[in-house]
Amino acid sequence: MLIQSVLAFSFLFVASYASVQDFCVADLSLPDTPSGFPCKDVKKLSVSDFVYSGLGAAGNTSNLIKAAVTPAFTAQFPGVNGLGISLARLDLAVGGVVPMHTHPGASELLVIIEGTICAGFISSANAVYFKTLYKGDIMVFPQGLLHFQINSGKGPALAFVSFGSPSPGLQITDFALFANDLPTEIVAATTFLDVAQIKKLKGVLGGSN
Amino acid sequence: MLIQSVLAFSFLFVASYASVQDFCVADLSLPDTPSGFPCKDVKKLSVSDFVYSGLGAAGNTSNLIKAAVTPAFTAQFPGVNGLGISLARLDLAVGGVVPMHTHPGASELLVIIEGTICAGFISSANAVYFKTLYKGDIMVFPQGLLHFQINSGKGPALAFVSFGSPSPGLQITDFALFANDLPTEIVAATTFLDVAQIKKLKGVLGGSN
Amino acid sequence: MLIQSVLAFSFLFVASYASVQDFCVADLSLPDTPSGFPCKDVKKLSVSDFVYSGLGAAGNTSNLIKAAVTPAFTAQFPGVNGLGISLARLDLAVGGVVPMHTHPGASELLVIIEGTICAGFISSANAVYFKTLYKGDIMVFPQGLLHFQINSGKGPALAFVSFGSPSPGLQITDFALFANDLPTEIVAATTFLDVAQIKKLKGVLGGSN
Amino acid sequence: MLIQSVLAFSFLFVASYASVQDFCVADLSLPDTPSGFPCKDVKKLSVSDFVYSGLGAAGNTSNLIKAAVTPAFTAQFPGVNGLGISLARLDLAVGGVVPMHTHPGASELLVIIEGTICAGFISSANAVYFKTLYKGDIMVFPQGLLHFQINSGKGPALAFVSFGSPSPGLQITDFALFANDLPTEIVAATTFLDVAQIKKLKGVLGGSN
Amino acid sequence: MLIQSVLAFSFLFVASYASVQDFCVADLSLPDTPSGFPCKDVKKLSVSDFVYSGLGAAGNTSNLIKAAVTPAFTAQFPGVNGLGISLARLDLAVGGVVPMHTHPGASELLVIIEGTICAGFISSANAVYFKTLYKGDIMVFPQGLLHFQINSGKGPALAFVSFGSPSPGLQITDFALFANDLPTEIVAATTFLDVAQIKKLKGVLGGSN
Amino acid sequence: MLIQSVLAFSFLFVASYASVQDFCVADLSLPDTPSGFPCKDVKKLSVSDFVYSGLGAAGNTSNLIKAAVTPAFTAQFPGVNGLGISLARLDLAVGGVVPMHTHPGASELLVIIEGTICAGFISSANAVYFKTLYKGDIMVFPQGLLHFQINSGKGPALAFVSFGSPSPGLQITDFALFANDLPTEIVAATTFLDVAQIKKLKGVLGGSN
Repeated sequence: MLIQSVLAFSFLFVASYASVQDFCVADLSLPDTPSGFPCKDVKKLSVSDFVYSGLGAAGNTSNLIKAAVTPAFTAQFPGVNGLGISLARLDLAVGGVVPMHTHPGASELLVIIEGTICAGFISSANAVYFKTLYKGDIMVFPQGLLHFQINSGKGPALAFVSFGSPSPGLQITDFALFANDLPTEIVAATTFLDVAQIKKLKGVLGGSN
Repeated sequence: MLIQSVLAFSFLFVASYASVQDFCVADLSLPDTPSGFPCKDVKKLSVSDFVYSGLGAAGNTSNLIKAAVTPAFTAQFPGVNGLGISLARLDLAVGGVVPMHTHPGASELLVIIEGTICAGFISSANAVYFKTLYKGDIMVFPQGLLHFQINSGKGPALAFVSFGSPSPGLQITDFALFANDLPTEIVAATTFLDVAQIKKLKGVLGGSN
Repeated sequence: MLIQSVLAFSFLFVASYASVQDFCVADLSLPDTPSGFPCKDVKKLSVSDFVYSGLGAAGNTSNLIKAAVTPAFTAQFPGVNGLGISLARLDLAVGGVVPMHTHPGASELLVIIEGTICAGFISSANAVYFKTLYKGDIMVFPQGLLHFQINSGKGPALAFVSFGSPSPGLQITDFALFANDLPTEIVAATTFLDVAQIKKLKGVLGGSN
Repeated sequence: MLIQSVLAFSFLFVASYASVQDFCVADLSLPDTPSGFPCKDVKKLSVSDFVYSGLGAAGNTSNLIKAAVTPAFTAQFPGVNGLGISLARLDLAVGGVVPMHTHPGASELLVIIEGTICAGFISSANAVYFKTLYKGDIMVFPQGLLHFQINSGKGPALAFVSFGSPSPGLQITDFALFANDLPTEIVAATTFLDVAQIKKLKGVLGGSN
Repeated sequence: MLIQSVLAFSFLFVASYASVQDFCVADLSLPDTPSGFPCKDVKKLSVSDFVYSGLGAAGNTSNLIKAAVTPAFTAQFPGVNGLGISLARLDLAVGGVVPMHTHPGASELLVIIEGTICAGFISSANAVYFKTLYKGDIMVFPQGLLHFQINSGKGPALAFVSFGSPSPGLQITDFALFANDLPTEIVAATTFLDVAQIKKLKGVLGGSN
Repeated sequence: MLIQSVLAFSFLFVASYASVQDFCVADLSLPDTPSGFPCKDVKKLSVSDFVYSGLGAAGNTSNLIKAAVTPAFTAQFPGVNGLGISLARLDLAVGGVVPMHTHPGASELLVIIEGTICAGFISSANAVYFKTLYKGDIMVFPQGLLHFQINSGKGPALAFVSFGSPSPGLQITDFALFANDLPTEIVAATTFLDVAQIKKLKGVLGGSN
């Protein structure tokens, strides 16, 4: 009889809260909203929706910057949708660089797993904060400010970066300026760079105009 | 002529603001989002969408805990969707108990309407705050912390609890540990409880494994 | 030896989290901030900081509107500071009225404890939503919209109102227009009311100019 | 070979972030949500989605209040959806008035472009703050509080008002009270206005009951 | 006797809400907090705290960029503290340019008051959105993204820009890179710019190292 | 002359934005607020305020649970104050366990650096989600829900956990129930645990009453 009562009680509570929203795994097939993607049906979720293995392998650093950023944002890992956090893996080969960039929508925390990284950011007041970081060091990069990471050691470096948003965005200054069809004259007028310099980098990065 | 001008003016304003969002009554037939359910068409709303009578009758306390929690969350009362508040009714028969639980997404305010309730919560710093409350007393339970309510009087007790979220969630510790298929060995390892104790409560609360 | 290990473990954790902010009981002696008052020292808190008894007694309804609103906002109940919720008690004698008003910073949920109340609100689109509410009924009033409550029964009425802010604010339209020194000509120009009507209400409500 | 590497790098990054949400231009054909409308497909956007020309022409002030408010809210300018800001144009002919009103969901900043405007607001504590503003002056109106603007100069006035919400709402007190079917007896009971005054304004503003 | 009752009622309400926070004018003499500056004492406020005249005069455009940005942020206009909005005036002489920049903490709305401005922004996905804007046109720049404004007309241009934050921040890319002591080798490594180009701009903008 | 103009321009901008708030390094000597600690003076900051080395060394796992959690929250790392993120290091010796716990104020992301961890959480709907995680795997734990981590491998395990709050809090269920002076009868009534079991764990964990 005890069991019977309890089950009744259990039913009461569980039924009442069936639609409570503890989480909201993104249904990427539906249109996004300002607060994130609509939620997948809770009944169709399993633990796999909350686990992601895509950061387990090193990114390919055979490129100009000798670096790879592998994100686990909503687009890759729908389980973080609506939860205000995400993660990325950063691989830097010897000499590797994450070029000057911003995350328009989130602050960032970097933790060094392996190697030596010189990292820094620049404030609105134009002050520069940079330091060489070693294994286990962490550094915070406040939201929206320009920052960079350079492998300053003799071997490869590995770091994880966490963000205070499931879709923090990433704007690499060089790509914004030189890897699209923004006219050279506008780039020149708004950056004071020489036209020859702009055309050179547009050539390298695939920009036109 | 005065009326004419005013009506023109009226039309101007009202037309302009026709789609302004004062509220967002949940359309529960559509997928949820991180900010709540999509809104029902304003043109189809009436005052009934903003009124709920489901808390008028006492909940059934003929169960093990001699208690009933009757929620008016978004799932029951779609009018609170997106407005950051909700309410529940708490009935406690003599000896009734709301077991140790948390609301993952909201703080709670309890107001005693009838009877005597011993209520308390435990902080992250492990401090205990509990007190016997009488008719008219209110107590606040900060977001996410373990708390409980016990009818410590000689008659039934009635209270209303308000939340700072339209879907505050509810996690009853005993149900989380003993009323599902979480393996006994994991429960034991993560709670230090004796296996016999775990199996006993799994039996009572319907858990397996 | 078991106990020894555990205590060491206990110390480790508790020390680490000593300054975690579960709550922030207002220190009303310090200047307010946009997010609420600075916090009292956690070490000086007791359960009394989270309990308030000021809503236990009926408010004095021997006044023009035969109504009394007794708030438990941050100013009266510092325990709600920073937690996003608060409560008030509403007493309405026979014929009592809470005049047309708004809460600039919060939505409101009304629960009828005793009596009969006709309550309503008006949307930005100028639609009117009102209904007679009975014991146990609840109604939600979306943030910032004009609303009112009238005792429409034959006996006194009692209700509790919860808010999605610890300092929801209250702007009674009549007081804003007629109970201060806002010049009559400005009131007339911005409300289309007759000057005689304005002067009459300024007289009643204590306004000047 | 340099170009090849860079393009590979470019592809890596751009692909990864393809679905990052920098903005969320409203798809007004879908149901709204508490955080705003679902987003249009990024691939279908052009600069036109972020530019609006509807505030370029003066509003029609040939009406009772000799004023026109032309909004650029989400409904008119879907590009602001989810971005927390919007704008409106305010034209006041000689003698023009924006009647006493509130924005339930946003604070407002007014900047005078041309002419002279007497503007003010009333606080919850019933204090009145008003001043005559000249070209270039700005004034802030805190969220949800009653405020007004009157052309107090000898020529027409032009101002722009910005809001801290893409859908700030607008509730004109006179329209809420007199331009709908809210019964005269309720208006009288909740405002203390004389029935004759109410009926007169209902007549002017198109209200019934 | 009527008056007497009402005054009692008035006292009841006004006293209760005396410390409600409608606004929070910054006391810039106290340390800032994450939500803004602590509030000035309400009793010491006047309408002057909510009005600012500093945008009335044209900024001085006799400089390299032939442009002036005159802000009305919390630092200049303490009345916007905690209200989520602010404003700035933008003067552009013939040929004037606001160089490529971001606002780390807010979206921006630009309204053209006079003249012709070519304005644009670049998204995280590296897409370019730019257009020539004329008097009365408005354009929105989503939070944290690189954007610019160029006077593309034959006369001076004037615009106002509103922000969804009382302290939106401003990071001009050129200043961040070339107007401080960030070492040339780091700038080169993180931007791919030629060292000669960097040194040239450091010379112009006052940077060292 | 070019340099002169630019410097003037530089001064104009930098002066205007001197007090812009990009970040808010906590001044832990001042009282906390609901949004975090007041900010240290920007002029006294250096890069050290944004870097923390306290997670570099393994925590001491010579305790009952064979585990150590080393936090970098606001209290340890004031640079994250107000930025919405923080980090902790998790060391698990062979057989180590992080007992069932919640973070009242934040979601959590776990990344496995070394070893094998069985991790899981339980939802409000009482569903269990757990899985064995290997090096490089990440798992998200939604805000406020009970979760745990167990070293299920044959060697030590190392993980980093990031949070969507600078002060996420931590409530270990066992400590909340058994390591303070919460009376045994209340624990029994609110958990259904046997009194003998409670007293045993109170003995182990240092609780009284």
